[in-house]
Amino acid sequence: MTRETVIALDGMGGDHAPDVTVQGAVDAAGPNLHILLVGDSDTLAPRLDALAAQPGHRFVEIVHAPDKIFSTEDGARAVRSKPESSVVVACQTVRDGRAQGAVSLGHTGAMMAAATLHMRRIPGVQRPGIAVVLPSRAGFIVLIDAGANADARPEHLQQFAIMGRLFAQGVLGDPAPKVGLLSIGEEEGRGSELIQQATPLLREIPGFIGNVEGRDIPRGTARVVVTDGFTGNVALKLYEGSAEFLFSEMRAAVTETLIGRIGGLLIRPSVGRMRDRLDPEAVGGAVLLGVRGLAVIGHGSGSATAVANALHTAARGAREQVVDRLAAELGESPGSLST
Amino acid sequence: MTRETVIALDGMGGDHAPDVTVQGAVDAAGPNLHILLVGDSDTLAPRLDALAAQPGHRFVEIVHAPDKIFSTEDGARAVRSKPESSVVVACQTVRDGRAQGAVSLGHTGAMMAAATLHMRRIPGVQRPGIAVVLPSRAGFIVLIDAGANADARPEHLQQFAIMGRLFAQGVLGDPAPKVGLLSIGEEEGRGSELIQQATPLLREIPGFIGNVEGRDIPRGTARVVVTDGFTGNVALKLYEGSAEFLFSEMRAAVTETLIGRIGGLLIRPSVGRMRDRLDPEAVGGAVLLGVRGLAVIGHGSGSATAVANALHTAARGAREQVVDRLAAELGESPGSLST
Repeated sequence: MTRETVIALDGMGGDHAPDVTVQGAVDAAGPNLHILLVGDSDTLAPRLDALAAQPGHRFVEIVHAPDKIFSTEDGARAVRSKPESSVVVACQTVRDGRAQGAVSLGHTGAMMAAATLHMRRIPGVQRPGIAVVLPSRAGFIVLIDAGANADARPEHLQQFAIMGRLFAQGVLGDPAPKVGLLSIGEEEGRGSELIQQATPLLREIPGFIGNVEGRDIPRGTARVVVTDGFTGNVALKLYEGSAEFLFSEMRAAVTETLIGRIGGLLIRPSVGRMRDRLDPEAVGGAVLLGVRGLAVIGHGSGSATAVANALHTAARGAREQVVDRLAAELGESPGSLST
Repeated sequence: MTRETVIALDGMGGDHAPDVTVQGAVDAAGPNLHILLVGDSDTLAPRLDALAAQPGHRFVEIVHAPDKIFSTEDGARAVRSKPESSVVVACQTVRDGRAQGAVSLGHTGAMMAAATLHMRRIPGVQRPGIAVVLPSRAGFIVLIDAGANADARPEHLQQFAIMGRLFAQGVLGDPAPKVGLLSIGEEEGRGSELIQQATPLLREIPGFIGNVEGRDIPRGTARVVVTDGFTGNVALKLYEGSAEFLFSEMRAAVTETLIGRIGGLLIRPSVGRMRDRLDPEAVGGAVLLGVRGLAVIGHGSGSATAVANALHTAARGAREQVVDRLAAELGESPGSLST
């Protein structure tokens, strides 16, 4: 009964493309997941052929796109000036119904622009939002909006909550996610004007638990943390940066003494397992929600495993019909949600 | 030539008051730093007497304040209804010129309200801002505003930059601090409307390096990170929470195996030294800038050492005349700074 899942991959995007994209595509592909590998076929074909012995190989199809967008370009402008770039063509396969989602590890701004322009917004969605998966003491959580919009209105936050909740259900597998509004005090009435205006709208969302604070992100107090794209992007980058900083300080401190170095060797496997467990790339990057297809944006530095994970995330979202459910839900309450 | 430094301490504020406050006062006090220990004298006197053998003892004077504010109360309201509470009386000693600064480990909202109401704003300051000291790869940095105001206007951000810069010079000892505006992309023109309007105003500040991102906080790219109180408070609490989370996950991972436990024991001293080095309490809590006196807000859970550090921070700020320099600087450019 399930239709075959097809996901498009921007084969040219990311710091280590096309090697990791081709490998990740083959790793993820199988009878239930077909991959459209989009990019310059002269570049991609020999790399794909080299993996012909791997079982996923025959479920990967190259879609030619002669051009590519570089990380130094302005994303939105490049998407307009390069209609034959790999990221644009990947999003077009979704628009044309050939794929249900698209993945890129390239330029975030370009992927967002390409997805918005070519997949187009779901009717009723005022602003697509970026959902990112973050580790917490209570497992993975989702933060939305992680930077699609620098300024938000209260209704946008309400829509982000709806989108984040469906994402947490469909992709994180939490049937009844708790939803929190990121603010600066748990009491109602605290927080910015935006928060105060958004709170009554958020109260309509099932599972809404009220305000949460910055420290509730690592605590996992809410499965879905709703915020504007400015605060969300600051929080995302600070969270990533804190982990980098603490691990590097710890490495430096431990290697200062011989005893410390020995201890460091002994804990290395445990710490490695912990880092793998907390790595949000296991769940596969950031997802632009609110467009007519799943648009997954991976870390530019991602490995083949990260590529495969991002493809699996997109596939899971497609199977769980996150986009259709989102369209249905946002269409159901036009009164409170339309501008 | 230097006048004697006198700092008032809210003896009743904090989770472990009055024990840690009395001890911290005696630890910090000396010929160059007199402490006014404010609170119920029946409670404080016997505890202070018990430390009579310690050298700092004779530089601590009790100032009676019969009342106290509890952490469950609404801060602003309690400050008005309890004029004889320890935090209010501590701030009044600054207003009356008996002390140059006040320290409380109690209710943040109450200390802010008491400082604003009783020390009063420096003429020309539109909004006092909370400066917090945070660890980074490049040493301690200051984030301002960490939550005094939930909403900010561009001129407020400019004033926070001026205040943060003077604080970094006077308290962190950086003669030429770099100043960054927290945003969601390093390129100009990115960021919220607030950021775009504030950028030209920030360009007037010496040492301004443009936009910084969330990850630049742990990297220490700027010595002074300027932001609105909403984003700043989210960032502060997320940064604290990330460290708690990563240390607890690491402890859990390491203790899963016997080898890990042995390794954990071996690295413990190194990690302890690292945590001490990164502990912002070494620099002493958050400071409300923009009022006519130094108002230092310590962590409620702080130890006697944290109390002493907060007192030293206040004293250092007083000796460096941070408040006078702030008044001079904000008075100098009334054209661009007044409402």
